[in-house]
Amino acid sequence: MDLKETEISSQQIFQGRILDLSVRTIKLPNGETATREIIKHRPASGVIAINDEQKMLLVKQWREAIKQITLEIPAGLIDPTDASPLGAMKRELNEEGGYKADYWEKVSEFYSSPGFCDEKMYLFYCDTLTKLPDKRSLDADEFLTADWYSLDELKNLLAEGKIVDAKTIYAITVWENMLLRNAQADNKE
Amino acid sequence: MDLKETEISSQQIFQGRILDLSVRTIKLPNGETATREIIKHRPASGVIAINDEQKMLLVKQWREAIKQITLEIPAGLIDPTDASPLGAMKRELNEEGGYKADYWEKVSEFYSSPGFCDEKMYLFYCDTLTKLPDKRSLDADEFLTADWYSLDELKNLLAEGKIVDAKTIYAITVWENMLLRNAQADNKE
Repeated sequence: MDLKETEISSQQIFQGRILDLSVRTIKLPNGETATREIIKHRPASGVIAINDEQKMLLVKQWREAIKQITLEIPAGLIDPTDASPLGAMKRELNEEGGYKADYWEKVSEFYSSPGFCDEKMYLFYCDTLTKLPDKRSLDADEFLTADWYSLDELKNLLAEGKIVDAKTIYAITVWENMLLRNAQADNKE
Repeated sequence: MDLKETEISSQQIFQGRILDLSVRTIKLPNGETATREIIKHRPASGVIAINDEQKMLLVKQWREAIKQITLEIPAGLIDPTDASPLGAMKRELNEEGGYKADYWEKVSEFYSSPGFCDEKMYLFYCDTLTKLPDKRSLDADEFLTADWYSLDELKNLLAEGKIVDAKTIYAITVWENMLLRNAQADNKE
Protein backbone atom coordinates (compact mmCIF):
# COMPACT_ATOMS: atom_id res chain seq x y z
CA MET A 1 0.00 0.00 0.00
CA ASP A 2 1.33 3.46 -0.90
CA LEU A 3 1.16 5.38 2.36
CA LYS A 4 2.63 8.68 1.18
CA GLU A 5 0.61 11.84 1.57
CA THR A 6 1.26 14.95 -0.53
CA GLU A 7 1.12 18.54 0.64
CA ILE A 8 -1.30 20.63 -1.43
CA SER A 9 -1.10 23.88 0.53
CA SER A 10 -0.01 25.21 3.90
CA GLN A 11 -1.38 28.18 5.82
CA GLN A 12 0.88 29.62 8.51
CA ILE A 13 -1.21 30.55 11.55
CA PHE A 14 1.51 31.63 13.99
CA GLN A 15 5.24 32.20 14.05
CA GLY A 16 6.63 32.30 17.59
CA ARG A 17 9.82 32.18 19.57
CA ILE A 18 10.05 28.41 20.00
CA LEU A 19 7.32 27.12 17.69
CA ASP A 20 5.33 27.81 14.48
CA LEU A 21 1.83 26.56 13.73
CA SER A 22 0.44 25.87 10.28
CA VAL A 23 -2.60 24.08 8.91
CA ARG A 24 -1.77 21.98 5.87
CA THR A 25 -4.10 20.55 3.28
CA ILE A 26 -2.81 17.19 2.11
CA LYS A 27 -3.76 14.60 -0.47
CA LEU A 28 -4.36 11.18 1.10
CA PRO A 29 -3.25 7.89 -0.52
CA ASN A 30 -6.83 7.37 -1.76
CA GLY A 31 -6.87 10.78 -3.51
CA GLU A 32 -9.13 12.48 -0.97
CA THR A 33 -7.96 15.59 0.87
CA ALA A 34 -7.61 16.18 4.62
CA THR A 35 -6.13 18.86 6.87
CA ARG A 36 -3.30 18.48 9.38
CA GLU A 37 -2.43 20.86 12.23
CA ILE A 38 1.37 20.97 12.28
CA ILE A 39 3.78 22.43 14.85
CA LYS A 40 7.35 23.23 13.88
CA HIS A 41 9.54 23.31 17.01
CA ARG A 42 13.25 23.88 17.59
CA PRO A 43 15.31 20.73 18.26
CA ALA A 44 16.66 19.92 21.74
CA SER A 45 19.32 17.87 23.52
CA GLY A 46 19.01 15.90 26.77
CA VAL A 47 21.43 13.87 28.88
CA ILE A 48 21.65 10.87 31.20
CA ALA A 49 24.37 12.23 33.52
CA ILE A 50 25.69 9.69 36.05
CA ASN A 51 28.09 10.64 38.84
CA ASP A 52 30.75 8.54 40.63
CA GLU A 53 28.16 7.49 43.26
CA GLN A 54 25.97 5.95 40.52
CA LYS A 55 23.34 8.67 40.77
CA MET A 56 21.53 10.47 37.95
CA LEU A 57 21.22 14.24 37.70
CA LEU A 58 17.67 15.63 37.46
CA VAL A 59 16.43 19.19 37.47
CA LYS A 60 13.22 20.55 38.98
CA GLN A 61 11.43 23.31 37.13
CA TRP A 62 7.97 24.78 36.55
CA ARG A 63 6.30 23.64 33.34
CA GLU A 64 3.55 26.09 32.43
CA ALA A 65 2.08 23.76 29.76
CA ILE A 66 1.04 21.30 32.49
CA LYS A 67 1.12 23.79 35.39
CA GLN A 68 3.31 21.71 37.64
CA ILE A 69 6.89 21.34 38.82
CA THR A 70 8.57 18.45 37.01
CA LEU A 71 11.66 16.30 37.59
CA GLU A 72 13.52 16.00 34.28
CA ILE A 73 16.93 15.13 32.91
CA PRO A 74 18.98 18.23 32.03
CA ALA A 75 17.89 19.30 28.55
CA GLY A 76 17.42 22.35 26.45
CA LEU A 77 16.77 23.80 23.03
CA ILE A 78 19.68 23.76 20.62
CA ASP A 79 20.67 27.39 19.99
CA PRO A 80 21.65 28.58 16.49
CA THR A 81 25.07 29.38 18.03
CA ASP A 82 25.61 25.79 19.30
CA ALA A 83 28.12 23.86 17.20
CA SER A 84 26.11 20.61 17.40
CA PRO A 85 23.50 18.78 19.53
CA LEU A 86 26.41 17.54 21.70
CA GLY A 87 27.81 21.07 21.98
CA ALA A 88 24.35 22.28 23.08
CA MET A 89 24.18 19.51 25.70
CA LYS A 90 27.61 20.37 27.12
CA ARG A 91 26.47 23.99 27.48
CA GLU A 92 23.19 22.94 29.11
CA LEU A 93 24.94 20.59 31.56
CA ASN A 94 27.06 23.55 32.60
CA GLU A 95 24.12 26.01 32.84
CA GLU A 96 21.63 23.66 34.53
CA GLY A 97 23.97 21.69 36.79
CA GLY A 98 27.35 23.42 36.80
CA TYR A 99 29.11 20.27 35.61
CA LYS A 100 31.39 19.12 32.84
CA ALA A 101 31.82 15.45 31.88
CA ASP A 102 34.83 13.65 30.41
CA TYR A 103 33.00 10.64 28.94
CA TRP A 104 30.15 11.11 26.45
CA GLU A 105 28.22 8.80 24.17
CA LYS A 106 25.11 9.26 22.06
CA VAL A 107 22.13 7.14 23.11
CA SER A 108 19.49 7.93 20.47
CA GLU A 109 17.65 10.63 18.59
CA PHE A 110 13.89 10.81 18.15
CA TYR A 111 10.85 12.95 17.43
CA SER A 112 8.92 13.68 20.65
CA SER A 113 5.48 13.47 19.03
CA PRO A 114 5.63 13.07 15.24
CA GLY A 115 1.84 12.88 14.91
CA PHE A 116 1.68 16.68 14.91
CA CYS A 117 5.13 18.11 15.70
CA ASP A 118 8.68 18.00 14.27
CA GLU A 119 10.47 18.54 17.62
CA LYS A 120 13.59 16.36 17.51
CA MET A 121 15.57 15.38 20.60
CA TYR A 122 19.14 14.11 20.79
CA LEU A 123 19.79 12.01 23.90
CA PHE A 124 23.29 11.54 25.32
CA TYR A 125 24.87 9.62 28.20
CA CYS A 126 27.78 11.05 30.16
CA ASP A 127 29.79 10.23 33.26
CA THR A 128 33.16 11.15 34.86
CA LEU A 129 31.72 14.49 35.98
CA THR A 130 33.51 17.46 37.53
CA LYS A 131 31.84 20.37 39.33
CA LEU A 132 32.84 23.61 37.63
CA PRO A 133 34.07 26.55 39.73
CA ASP A 134 32.37 29.06 37.41
CA LYS A 135 28.92 27.89 36.36
CA ARG A 136 27.35 29.57 33.32
CA SER A 137 24.13 31.53 33.93
CA LEU A 138 20.71 30.12 33.12
CA ASP A 139 18.52 31.95 30.61
CA ALA A 140 16.85 35.00 32.17
CA ASP A 141 13.44 33.29 32.22
CA GLU A 142 14.71 29.92 33.52
CA PHE A 143 14.58 28.85 37.19
CA LEU A 144 15.52 25.37 38.35
CA THR A 145 17.29 23.29 40.98
CA ALA A 146 19.43 20.21 40.33
CA ASP A 147 19.85 17.04 42.44
CA TRP A 148 21.18 13.48 42.26
CA TYR A 149 19.04 10.32 42.44
CA SER A 150 19.96 6.63 42.75
CA LEU A 151 18.19 4.09 40.53
CA ASP A 152 16.17 2.86 43.52
CA GLU A 153 15.06 6.41 44.30
CA LEU A 154 14.11 6.93 40.65
CA LYS A 155 12.09 3.70 40.58
CA ASN A 156 10.21 4.77 43.69
CA LEU A 157 9.51 8.19 42.17
CA LEU A 158 8.24 6.47 39.00
CA ALA A 159 6.03 4.11 40.99
CA GLU A 160 4.58 7.12 42.84
CA GLY A 161 3.83 8.90 39.53
CA LYS A 162 6.23 11.72 40.41
CA ILE A 163 8.17 11.62 37.13
CA VAL A 164 5.89 12.51 34.24
CA ASP A 165 8.25 13.65 31.48
CA ALA A 166 8.59 11.21 28.55
CA LYS A 167 12.31 11.68 27.86
CA THR A 168 13.14 11.30 31.58
CA ILE A 169 11.14 8.07 31.93
CA TYR A 170 12.89 6.79 28.80
CA ALA A 171 16.31 7.89 30.17
CA ILE A 172 15.76 5.99 33.43
CA THR A 173 14.74 2.87 31.48
CA VAL A 174 17.88 3.15 29.30
CA TRP A 175 20.08 3.50 32.39
CA GLU A 176 18.43 0.51 34.12
CA ASN A 177 18.93 -1.45 30.91
CA MET A 178 22.65 -0.56 30.87
CA LEU A 179 23.00 -1.73 34.49
CA LEU A 180 21.09 -4.97 33.81
CA ARG A 181 23.37 -5.74 30.84
CA ASN A 182 26.48 -5.01 32.89
CA ALA A 183 25.25 -7.35 35.63
CA GLN A 184 24.54 -10.01 33.01
CA ALA A 185 28.04 -9.60 31.50
CA ASP A 186 29.61 -9.85 34.99
CA ASN A 187 27.66 -13.06 35.65
CA LYS A 188 29.03 -14.64 32.49
CA GLU A 189 32.67 -13.85 33.32
CA MET B 1 13.98 28.09 45.86
CA ASP B 2 10.34 28.74 44.95
CA LEU B 3 10.07 27.59 41.33
CA LYS B 4 6.38 28.27 40.77
CA GLU B 5 5.33 30.57 37.96
CA THR B 6 1.95 32.33 37.92
CA GLU B 7 -0.26 32.90 34.90
CA ILE B 8 -1.08 36.58 34.43
CA SER B 9 -2.97 36.34 31.13
CA SER B 10 -3.49 34.00 28.20
CA GLN B 11 -4.29 34.84 24.60
CA GLN B 12 -5.78 32.06 22.50
CA ILE B 13 -4.27 32.13 19.00
CA PHE B 14 -5.85 29.03 17.45
CA GLN B 15 -8.44 26.41 18.31
CA GLY B 16 -8.15 23.34 16.08
CA ARG B 17 -9.27 19.77 15.72
CA ILE B 18 -6.46 18.12 17.70
CA LEU B 19 -4.66 21.09 19.28
CA ASP B 20 -5.07 24.65 20.58
CA LEU B 21 -2.34 27.30 20.74
CA SER B 22 -2.16 30.13 23.24
CA VAL B 23 0.49 32.60 24.30
CA ARG B 24 0.58 33.09 28.06
CA THR B 25 2.16 35.88 30.06
CA ILE B 26 3.52 34.52 33.31
CA LYS B 27 5.15 35.91 36.43
CA LEU B 28 8.56 34.31 37.08
CA PRO B 29 9.83 33.37 40.57
CA ASN B 30 11.90 36.59 40.62
CA GLY B 31 8.83 38.75 39.92
CA GLU B 32 9.70 39.48 36.28
CA THR B 33 7.31 38.55 33.48
CA ALA B 34 7.88 36.30 30.47
CA THR B 35 5.78 34.75 27.71
CA ARG B 36 5.22 31.05 26.99
CA GLU B 37 3.88 29.50 23.77
CA ILE B 38 1.60 26.68 24.91
CA ILE B 39 -0.04 23.86 22.96
CA LYS B 40 -3.03 22.02 24.37
CA HIS B 41 -3.34 18.59 22.72
CA ARG B 42 -5.74 15.67 23.18
CA PRO B 43 -4.37 12.72 25.20
CA ALA B 44 -3.41 9.44 23.53
CA SER B 45 -2.85 5.76 24.28
CA GLY B 46 -0.14 3.46 22.93
CA VAL B 47 0.65 -0.25 23.33
CA ILE B 48 3.53 -2.74 23.44
CA ALA B 49 1.69 -5.68 21.81
CA ILE B 50 3.63 -8.96 21.86
CA ASN B 51 2.45 -12.08 20.01
CA ASP B 52 3.07 -15.76 20.80
CA GLU B 53 6.21 -15.72 18.61
CA GLN B 54 7.74 -13.00 20.82
CA LYS B 55 7.31 -10.30 18.18
CA MET B 56 6.10 -6.72 18.62
CA LEU B 57 3.38 -5.12 16.50
CA LEU B 58 4.35 -1.90 14.71
CA VAL B 59 2.43 0.19 12.21
CA LYS B 60 3.79 2.13 9.25
CA GLN B 61 2.16 5.45 8.42
CA TRP B 62 2.90 8.82 6.84
CA ARG B 63 3.66 11.57 9.35
CA GLU B 64 3.13 14.93 7.69
CA ALA B 65 4.86 16.84 10.55
CA ILE B 66 8.18 15.22 9.63
CA LYS B 67 7.24 14.28 6.05
CA GLN B 68 8.26 10.66 6.31
CA ILE B 69 6.82 7.19 6.81
CA THR B 70 7.41 6.05 10.41
CA LEU B 71 7.38 2.72 12.23
CA GLU B 72 5.44 3.17 15.48
CA ILE B 73 3.66 1.15 18.12
CA PRO B 74 -0.13 1.15 17.64
CA ALA B 75 -1.44 4.33 19.23
CA GLY B 76 -4.12 6.91 18.85
CA LEU B 77 -5.95 9.85 20.33
CA ILE B 78 -8.40 9.08 23.10
CA ASP B 79 -11.88 9.88 21.79
CA PRO B 80 -14.47 11.58 24.01
CA THR B 81 -16.56 8.40 23.53
CA ASP B 82 -13.80 6.08 24.86
CA ALA B 83 -14.52 4.81 28.37
CA SER B 84 -10.86 5.15 29.46
CA PRO B 85 -7.28 5.27 28.09
CA LEU B 86 -7.33 1.44 28.16
CA GLY B 87 -10.66 1.37 26.34
CA ALA B 88 -9.21 3.69 23.68
CA MET B 89 -6.20 1.40 23.30
CA LYS B 90 -8.36 -1.70 22.87
CA ARG B 91 -10.28 0.12 20.11
CA GLU B 92 -7.04 1.26 18.42
CA LEU B 93 -5.50 -2.24 18.56
CA ASN B 94 -8.60 -3.47 16.75
CA GLU B 95 -8.63 -0.61 14.17
CA GLU B 96 -4.89 -0.52 13.47
CA GLY B 97 -4.06 -4.21 13.71
CA GLY B 98 -7.30 -6.17 13.80
CA TYR B 99 -6.38 -7.81 17.12
CA LYS B 100 -7.75 -8.26 20.60
CA ALA B 101 -5.58 -9.21 23.60
CA ASP B 102 -6.47 -11.17 26.73
CA TYR B 103 -3.65 -9.94 28.98
CA TRP B 104 -3.17 -6.20 29.61
CA GLU B 105 -1.08 -4.18 32.02
CA LYS B 106 -0.29 -0.49 32.29
CA VAL B 107 3.37 0.43 31.78
CA SER B 108 3.44 4.19 32.41
CA GLU B 109 1.89 7.52 31.63
CA PHE B 110 3.81 10.63 30.61
CA TYR B 111 3.74 14.01 28.89
CA SER B 112 5.38 13.81 25.43
CA SER B 113 7.01 17.24 25.65
CA PRO B 114 5.96 19.21 28.74
CA GLY B 115 8.20 22.17 27.86
CA PHE B 116 5.48 23.51 25.57
CA CYS B 117 2.66 20.95 25.28
CA ASP B 118 0.21 19.12 27.57
CA GLU B 119 -0.13 16.00 25.35
CA LYS B 120 -0.37 13.03 27.73
CA MET B 121 0.22 9.44 26.67
CA TYR B 122 -0.85 6.26 28.45
CA LEU B 123 1.36 3.28 27.57
CA PHE B 124 0.14 -0.30 27.95
CA TYR B 125 1.60 -3.78 27.45
CA CYS B 126 -0.51 -6.64 26.12
CA ASP B 127 -0.06 -10.20 24.96
CA THR B 128 -2.20 -13.33 24.34
CA LEU B 129 -3.48 -11.84 21.09
CA THR B 130 -6.21 -13.11 18.79
CA LYS B 131 -6.82 -11.97 15.21
CA LEU B 132 -10.37 -10.68 14.90
CA PRO B 133 -12.59 -11.86 12.05
CA ASP B 134 -14.24 -8.44 11.78
CA LYS B 135 -11.69 -5.63 12.06
CA ARG B 136 -13.01 -2.13 12.81
CA SER B 137 -12.39 0.54 10.17
CA LEU B 138 -9.65 3.11 10.46
CA ASP B 139 -10.54 6.80 10.55
CA ALA B 140 -11.33 8.12 7.05
CA ASP B 141 -8.03 10.07 6.91
CA GLU B 142 -5.85 7.27 8.32
CA PHE B 143 -3.78 4.87 6.17
CA LEU B 144 -1.36 2.36 7.65
CA THR B 145 0.02 -1.17 7.48
CA ALA B 146 0.85 -3.39 10.48
CA ASP B 147 3.66 -5.97 10.90
CA TRP B 148 5.47 -8.01 13.55
CA TYR B 149 9.14 -7.55 14.56
CA SER B 150 11.45 -9.59 16.78
CA LEU B 151 13.63 -7.81 19.35
CA ASP B 152 16.71 -8.46 17.19
CA GLU B 153 14.97 -6.94 14.17
CA LEU B 154 13.94 -3.93 16.26
CA LYS B 155 17.49 -3.43 17.54
CA ASN B 156 18.82 -3.50 13.98
CA LEU B 157 16.19 -0.98 12.88
CA LEU B 158 17.15 1.25 15.83
CA ALA B 159 20.86 0.97 14.99
CA GLU B 160 20.07 1.95 11.39
CA GLY B 161 18.10 5.01 12.57
CA LYS B 162 14.89 3.62 11.04
CA ILE B 163 12.76 4.06 14.17
CA VAL B 164 12.47 7.74 15.05
CA ASP B 165 9.35 7.95 17.21
CA ALA B 166 10.01 8.64 20.91
CA LYS B 167 7.26 6.41 22.37
CA THR B 168 8.29 3.51 20.11
CA ILE B 169 11.97 3.74 21.07
CA TYR B 170 10.87 3.85 24.73
CA ALA B 171 8.51 0.88 24.20
CA ILE B 172 11.31 -1.24 22.70
CA THR B 173 13.59 -0.37 25.64
CA VAL B 174 10.84 -1.33 28.11
CA TRP B 175 10.31 -4.67 26.34
CA GLU B 176 14.06 -5.43 26.26
CA ASN B 177 14.19 -4.54 29.95
CA MET B 178 11.34 -7.00 30.68
CA LEU B 179 13.19 -9.76 28.79
CA LEU B 180 16.50 -9.00 30.56
CA ARG B 181 14.78 -9.20 33.95
CA ASN B 182 13.09 -12.48 33.04
CA ALA B 183 16.45 -13.93 31.94
CA GLN B 184 17.99 -12.73 35.21
CA ALA B 185 15.16 -14.31 37.24
CA ASP B 186 15.57 -17.60 35.30
CA ASN B 187 19.32 -17.57 36.04
CA LYS B 188 18.67 -17.25 39.76
CA GLU B 189 16.27 -20.20 39.88
